[in-house]
Amino acid sequence: MGFLVNRATNPVTNGRLNSIVFQDFCIDGVSSSKPYIPGNGKTGIQVQYDTDSLRVEGMGFVYLTTALTVRNADAFNITNNFITECGTAMQLVNGAIVGKITNNYLISAWGGNSIFLENNDNCLISGNSLLWGARIQLKNAHRTLITGNKFVSNFSGMIVQETPCHEHLISGNHFRRIFGDGGPARNDDLYGMVQLNGNDNAVTSNMFSFDVPAANIVPAGATPTVVLVKGGARNFLATNQLVGNVPIRHVLDGSTSATKVLWSGTSSQLQDMTGGNMSFVPTP
Amino acid sequence: MGFLVNRATNPVTNGRLNSIVFQDFCIDGVSSSKPYIPGNGKTGIQVQYDTDSLRVEGMGFVYLTTALTVRNADAFNITNNFITECGTAMQLVNGAIVGKITNNYLISAWGGNSIFLENNDNCLISGNSLLWGARIQLKNAHRTLITGNKFVSNFSGMIVQETPCHEHLISGNHFRRIFGDGGPARNDDLYGMVQLNGNDNAVTSNMFSFDVPAANIVPAGATPTVVLVKGGARNFLATNQLVGNVPIRHVLDGSTSATKVLWSGTSSQLQDMTGGNMSFVPTP
Amino acid sequence: MGFLVNRATNPVTNGRLNSIVFQDFCIDGVSSSKPYIPGNGKTGIQVQYDTDSLRVEGMGFVYLTTALTVRNADAFNITNNFITECGTAMQLVNGAIVGKITNNYLISAWGGNSIFLENNDNCLISGNSLLWGARIQLKNAHRTLITGNKFVSNFSGMIVQETPCHEHLISGNHFRRIFGDGGPARNDDLYGMVQLNGNDNAVTSNMFSFDVPAANIVPAGATPTVVLVKGGARNFLATNQLVGNVPIRHVLDGSTSATKVLWSGTSSQLQDMTGGNMSFVPTP
Repeated sequence: MGFLVNRATNPVTNGRLNSIVFQDFCIDGVSSSKPYIPGNGKTGIQVQYDTDSLRVEGMGFVYLTTALTVRNADAFNITNNFITECGTAMQLVNGAIVGKITNNYLISAWGGNSIFLENNDNCLISGNSLLWGARIQLKNAHRTLITGNKFVSNFSGMIVQETPCHEHLISGNHFRRIFGDGGPARNDDLYGMVQLNGNDNAVTSNMFSFDVPAANIVPAGATPTVVLVKGGARNFLATNQLVGNVPIRHVLDGSTSATKVLWSGTSSQLQDMTGGNMSFVPTP
Repeated sequence: MGFLVNRATNPVTNGRLNSIVFQDFCIDGVSSSKPYIPGNGKTGIQVQYDTDSLRVEGMGFVYLTTALTVRNADAFNITNNFITECGTAMQLVNGAIVGKITNNYLISAWGGNSIFLENNDNCLISGNSLLWGARIQLKNAHRTLITGNKFVSNFSGMIVQETPCHEHLISGNHFRRIFGDGGPARNDDLYGMVQLNGNDNAVTSNMFSFDVPAANIVPAGATPTVVLVKGGARNFLATNQLVGNVPIRHVLDGSTSATKVLWSGTSSQLQDMTGGNMSFVPTP
Repeated sequence: MGFLVNRATNPVTNGRLNSIVFQDFCIDGVSSSKPYIPGNGKTGIQVQYDTDSLRVEGMGFVYLTTALTVRNADAFNITNNFITECGTAMQLVNGAIVGKITNNYLISAWGGNSIFLENNDNCLISGNSLLWGARIQLKNAHRTLITGNKFVSNFSGMIVQETPCHEHLISGNHFRRIFGDGGPARNDDLYGMVQLNGNDNAVTSNMFSFDVPAANIVPAGATPTVVLVKGGARNFLATNQLVGNVPIRHVLDGSTSATKVLWSGTSSQLQDMTGGNMSFVPTP
């Protein structure tokens, strides 16, 4: 472990830590090999004690199993870092409110996550470039704003709601799916470039660009899924642009209800398994 | 006052100040109590003389009545600051063109503003997290771009056009209204989470999430307002998602005309007081 | 030339350069005059050798013909710079993948470009303010994400696809066209505030605000063009707001096909020269 932030007391009685700053240097795990998990087992920074404010900015992280692990940070500000050749770029665990992850390069492999948020409310994720194994994994996270990010990935599952997650806004992002090195993939191409699993999430004004040779699609012959609405009610898709080298489509699971799909695909780009419990205005 | 930037001359004849930089330190007012207005009366930085370029970045501000007051700054660049426990986070007064407020934490109480813009044109406000008393107050400000911001507030009035303000684009923001400490509120729940009062403003691709116990809504029994179009013509709302624990709705004042409300609420989520001088396509 | 980054070897056999950082100082060309091209012929930074990672941040550039020229940079990160009084603010040439240009002031004159991208894939351009001669020029560039930028320009051509460019997402930007000093303009007012020339580009949730005295419109008496779709198929415009002091409109060239224009203008704000090979839902 590069740095451990901790204190042998109880934050409830002794207060949380404040004004932790990591800035403008590089943490290099020296050597590792893809997918870096388990890899060399190294962590760049681990924040184990509760914090009220935490800044990690202008840092470089390279060749680590996990660049950054933070527990119970309220207002974490992770900005302008270059994280590359890591298994997982960052995980915000245990709990957090109003964090901010902006303007970073997050380059990680297929075994881990670009960003993992757990029990996390009101996080802002904007202006990041997430690469090759681009994946934001959400577990009991709500009301995240994911906007203006560039995703380029060799794998499905670029945003995944692992458990029910509500009221996210995913807007103005560019999702690019290609085929390249690495794998085996954690998920097949029916998993969704984005997988929703909660209520009232909105996916608006995004570009979804899929370009994988037909022979490399898994399972063979499948129609790849763009947005999979796996569970929940009243999810809202509007004015998204879809581009594929093969036919692609959104899928509404039979358990979902009242999803809106508005100018987000042509009439052949939606598979509705709800029996009509949804609203669809196809792109003309 | 922490810092005063001034010069005993006339900027018209002697030129404006250039290249003012405040960077990477903290201004601490030591003690104050909510709502910090009038509080201890302290200001962090006051820029009194006209400037051509001004950078305030990586700074911390805490326990101040006003963190930052700037007069007549043309290209102010306020980025990556952490402003907390203040009455007003920043006010850009007298006049300004093409400012930029990006990637900040703005944590202020209910008495002041997160951002106050006066006689201000073409400002860019993006990637900020505005908390608890989140409020952007606009007075004779035009063509502001407000995008990719996270608002979490215990109060109505998260964006307010105090006087007629035109051609703003408010897009890709997440507005979260909750109930918590503080008050009395400056405005009731009919005031609008966003209040428009001008021509040709656009509100697109935002999430509005309202969660206040029915017993705490003011006035009692009222239907809370999401976007109040208080005045002006041709305001444009499209593809916004609304979520409420109680019924909520947009309101078009009787004085307004030709507002468009497109996939921004169901048929029960609009109160039209214009007698039909508007266009409405309800979310299906 | 202020700085030249180079090496007298072949990057294919000797590897690319890494971890180049320019940070927090100013490069001043001392004197020049508008439009700064040819001007004093000075370049601020020229990166001539291939790089894997390159950071230019917190810099000032002033009075230069070209502030920044970068050749074959993979993950270039150009953030929080103030570039002003230059001919061209930056050019990324020869080739590049996954670059990032965020949170900058780019103030250049009418002779050059704010940003020129050549053979460039997956670039993220967000949170920038581009002024007076605002222009993003794209040549064989694909899948750029242009979001949350403020354009204020005395000239047409704020985003130009010089050759066929595909799958760009242009979302949540504010385009302001005014009349002011400088010229002659490179292009007339039929050229488009934005000119598309490729397939599957999306232009969503933007504000287009045009305010030029009728007497200054070129050619005289012309109806200025907002988005010109000059070539290509399946371009997608949705939920854009148009404001003009004179009538303005989008134009679909006769060579284009299957463009969608959805709530992006009234029925009088589209000139369709395709003979109906397009879809149009006028703003009601």
